[in-house]
Amino acid sequence: MTTTMRQMVGEVLRTRRTARGQTLRDVSGRARVSLGYISEVERGQKEASSELLGALAAALEVPLSELLRDVADLLELHEVGSAQIGAAELVSIAPVRPQVQASAA
Amino acid sequence: MTTTMRQMVGEVLRTRRTARGQTLRDVSGRARVSLGYISEVERGQKEASSELLGALAAALEVPLSELLRDVADLLELHEVGSAQIGAAELVSIAPVRPQVQASAA
Repeated sequence: MTTTMRQMVGEVLRTRRTARGQTLRDVSGRARVSLGYISEVERGQKEASSELLGALAAALEVPLSELLRDVADLLELHEVGSAQIGAAELVSIAPVRPQVQASAA
Repeated sequence: MTTTMRQMVGEVLRTRRTARGQTLRDVSGRARVSLGYISEVERGQKEASSELLGALAAALEVPLSELLRDVADLLELHEVGSAQIGAAELVSIAPVRPQVQASAA
């Protein structure tokens, strides 16, 4: 696995945050977690603990279960080999076409 | 949150393992992870890294995305306040009724 779950968690968190127009500083303040730590988590460099994920989900006003489903969706795409689709196309914030262009080449 | 995501990850892993009739020793051998570590993860005492989760999913022959969805399902039940349903009723290994008896009392 070249892309780890950790990286996908980061991708999902960053996508959710930017979709809300929030800065790292905003989320850091709301979640009471250091900006550097959140930044590392978003870049897939640090593992997020359950507590941190819970705090970030609350700061982003999204149920943790929904964040996990985003990650599961991303993971599944990688599992089936369609590795070029990003979180932005999965997260159901912006209007998204019902079917992403996942071509099993 | 009294029940953390960490505990639900452990519950899902234990449920998956026992449903396959595997012992901690079996999974430890297959995943090349120490038995004590897996045991702590199953009891929700230790956070599982992305790599460990990947190794355990492989040992349990289940896609990691599916494990995550189990966790998301459990989390969601807790989020909506139906806290009395265990992973065993969610994991789709054994024949399970399509609708679990989640009564919003």
